Amino acid sequence: MVKIAAAAIVATATLAASTAFAQAKPEDAIAYRQGAFKVIGWNFGPMAGMVQGRIPYDKDGFAKRAANVAAVAAMPLEGFGPGTDAGAPTKAKPEVWSKADDFKAKMMKMNEEATKLAAIAKTGSLDDIKKQFGATGATCKACHDDYRNK
Amino acid sequence: MVKIAAAAIVATATLAASTAFAQAKPEDAIAYRQGAFKVIGWNFGPMAGMVQGRIPYDKDGFAKRAANVAAVAAMPLEGFGPGTDAGAPTKAKPEVWSKADDFKAKMMKMNEEATKLAAIAKTGSLDDIKKQFGATGATCKACHDDYRNK
Repeated sequence: MVKIAAAAIVATATLAASTAFAQAKPEDAIAYRQGAFKVIGWNFGPMAGMVQGRIPYDKDGFAKRAANVAAVAAMPLEGFGPGTDAGAPTKAKPEVWSKADDFKAKMMKMNEEATKLAAIAKTGSLDDIKKQFGATGATCKACHDDYRNK
Repeated sequence: MVKIAAAAIVATATLAASTAFAQAKPEDAIAYRQGAFKVIGWNFGPMAGMVQGRIPYDKDGFAKRAANVAAVAAMPLEGFGPGTDAGAPTKAKPEVWSKADDFKAKMMKMNEEATKLAAIAKTGSLDDIKKQFGATGATCKACHDDYRNK
């Protein structure tokens, strides 16, 4: 039990340390992280359309969207600071804070795969791009499954 | 009159050309641009606090926020495509679309000054950083004054 409690404290501290602006009002933090996700989703949509053949593939357009996602991918995390589980409508589950270490690891994994996608989108083959797009999308889904209410 | 109409068409075309995802639903475009502005505002706040002495100045923290703003500064524009003046609550004035050339120029100016701020924040003196922060904030205000309802 002591070990579990200590782990929880470390996890909370880790999340707090990543939130340099943790003194923000919860509603502002929630609006911020939702805004960052909106930017990610807006750019993800057309990439999905291209990968799935619903939109003509445009290498430069795809690469630009991948770069946009990579530029923002690390940003939402600091909007999940302590005390931001309520204060405005949010789909974030309590596990974001009770399993903060895993949540942070999953967010970092998304950032990592998005960064790879941005690099591959510039120079890779369409097959490689599709593969990395899938890997990136899977990291989104992993977090949504565990940490976001429907 | 013909000249004015032609200018308006060019302005509209220019704005449309910058919106590769112009087929998006108006409510999605509005949520996207508001999200991008939320990300900018979230990062701008602590920089303002440091410049004004309300928060202790932290060179790395300031530089990180300036980099975040620069990464997102060019993004909101494509959320102002044709037909996105309504469809969800928005403070955008009709002049965004009727004076699209000037609106776009002001948005690009903001992007330019934010990019300069990110560079100066890394290596400049605090005086230079404060000066460039002021120049960047002025470009935000210029657009808010003309194109955003209170």
